[in-house]
Amino acid sequence: RPMKMKVTMSVDNRSYWAVMEADIKAHLKQAIPIHPPLSVTEPMDHLIFAAPRSLAPALCIAACELVGGQRNQAIAAASALHLMHAALYTHEHLPLSKPKPKTKPTIYHSFKPNIELLTGDGILPLGLELLARSDEPTIKNSGRILRVIIEITRAVGSQGMLDGLYLENKCSGSDGGDDLCDVGWMAHVGEKKVGEFYACGAACGAILGEGSEEEIEKLRKFGFYVGMIHGMVLFGRDSRYEDKKLLEVVEGFRVLALKELEGFKEKQILETILE
Amino acid sequence: RPMKMKVTMSVDNRSYWAVMEADIKAHLKQAIPIHPPLSVTEPMDHLIFAAPRSLAPALCIAACELVGGQRNQAIAAASALHLMHAALYTHEHLPLSKPKPKTKPTIYHSFKPNIELLTGDGILPLGLELLARSDEPTIKNSGRILRVIIEITRAVGSQGMLDGLYLENKCSGSDGGDDLCDVGWMAHVGEKKVGEFYACGAACGAILGEGSEEEIEKLRKFGFYVGMIHGMVLFGRDSRYEDKKLLEVVEGFRVLALKELEGFKEKQILETILE
Repeated sequence: RPMKMKVTMSVDNRSYWAVMEADIKAHLKQAIPIHPPLSVTEPMDHLIFAAPRSLAPALCIAACELVGGQRNQAIAAASALHLMHAALYTHEHLPLSKPKPKTKPTIYHSFKPNIELLTGDGILPLGLELLARSDEPTIKNSGRILRVIIEITRAVGSQGMLDGLYLENKCSGSDGGDDLCDVGWMAHVGEKKVGEFYACGAACGAILGEGSEEEIEKLRKFGFYVGMIHGMVLFGRDSRYEDKKLLEVVEGFRVLALKELEGFKEKQILETILE
Repeated sequence: RPMKMKVTMSVDNRSYWAVMEADIKAHLKQAIPIHPPLSVTEPMDHLIFAAPRSLAPALCIAACELVGGQRNQAIAAASALHLMHAALYTHEHLPLSKPKPKTKPTIYHSFKPNIELLTGDGILPLGLELLARSDEPTIKNSGRILRVIIEITRAVGSQGMLDGLYLENKCSGSDGGDDLCDVGWMAHVGEKKVGEFYACGAACGAILGEGSEEEIEKLRKFGFYVGMIHGMVLFGRDSRYEDKKLLEVVEGFRVLALKELEGFKEKQILETILE
């Protein structure tokens, strides 16, 4: 597979991302417990792949390869990032008895809410289990894997993605009477839900690829800007930005992102994520 | 504190467990993020301590000390076990829009369901973060911590505690028409929700205390039997067991548990958990 990938890449850089997505999916398919009962693993398989795409896993692998690492050093972390995203997306869309989220799109629920709740709870630890199991004593990477576990648990935890989900939950449809829901709340949600999660993905890849601290922090910032752009595109339609203003903000993040890539040899591959 | 503990222990072994519970609580209090907003950390603090007591964290520390380890080697894992238990207990009691759990007791909800859902989601990664951060490169315990992360994520994951929750959810109030809900379902639930979780706690303590593989497996079995006893006492009233039969089953597990402790020097401390 690596051979084929290199050939394809020379023809079209975008294939780099497509092959990577396929690799992550294959890794996940193989990692999902196949033990019975099917009534548990079936919803798990469904919900893992039902969430819309996050680029954090792809950024993780790309950053690892950019600092000179091998894809297999980052594939478990990339899979864990996807699972965190899928678990929280599942819980974000649970139909709770009261008060219902006001701005969420109606999504199709294949399973009953209690099953979706439990399945999300099962997906979270599975991600961290995969990561912990990717430890290979022969290459002495335990310290790096533990560092990545800390990065990921923080990025999804109460000071990370959940902070964003909480604020979104509280302020969506708010009448503005709450101090928390000031004009900046949507930007804060975007930072926590997308920006910092993508930043974490890129930083984890650089850590696992044995990048220097400087490389790790440059790629963390690159990931953050990519996340903010992706967030703007995802949430932009719902926001009060005019189209022109939105394009300007996106262009600003794009310039900042490209700046962080300066000095990396193979940077043109990562640049294609901004196209 | 260790000095005081030893003095108390000679007077009353049960104080060993009380001091341990206090140590775990102190560790958790200090570990809960104190950053604002309070609207996130307040429900977190509440829900972490709202769940009924599980003995898995105490077993973790006791097993660590039994194989010759220090309390501080196991305190992060014990705290992580408590957080896993608290997170899943919170989610187990969420009021979902349909179908409502039938046999669950009505519990007092201090917060809205969306907050309880997100808070549970925040507690899970916090536990694993604490554990990963307890890595101390100077004592080269990364490999053991990763092994414990695998133990814990499996014990709570889709093949562990969630398997039990799922079956309980499905079979509580079932009319018996489902193949899954045969006569053995309640025993399976007890094994997954309590037995294997306690087993995991004791095994993790033995791993972190640098016990031998034989010691780890003996303490895992000990924890399992303690969990089954605790589960019988917790769930016994709801079951169809007569009181006499229940006592017989508990006594059987007690004998098996004591057998696993044979050969350990300080075994009388662990024996008191069975009193």
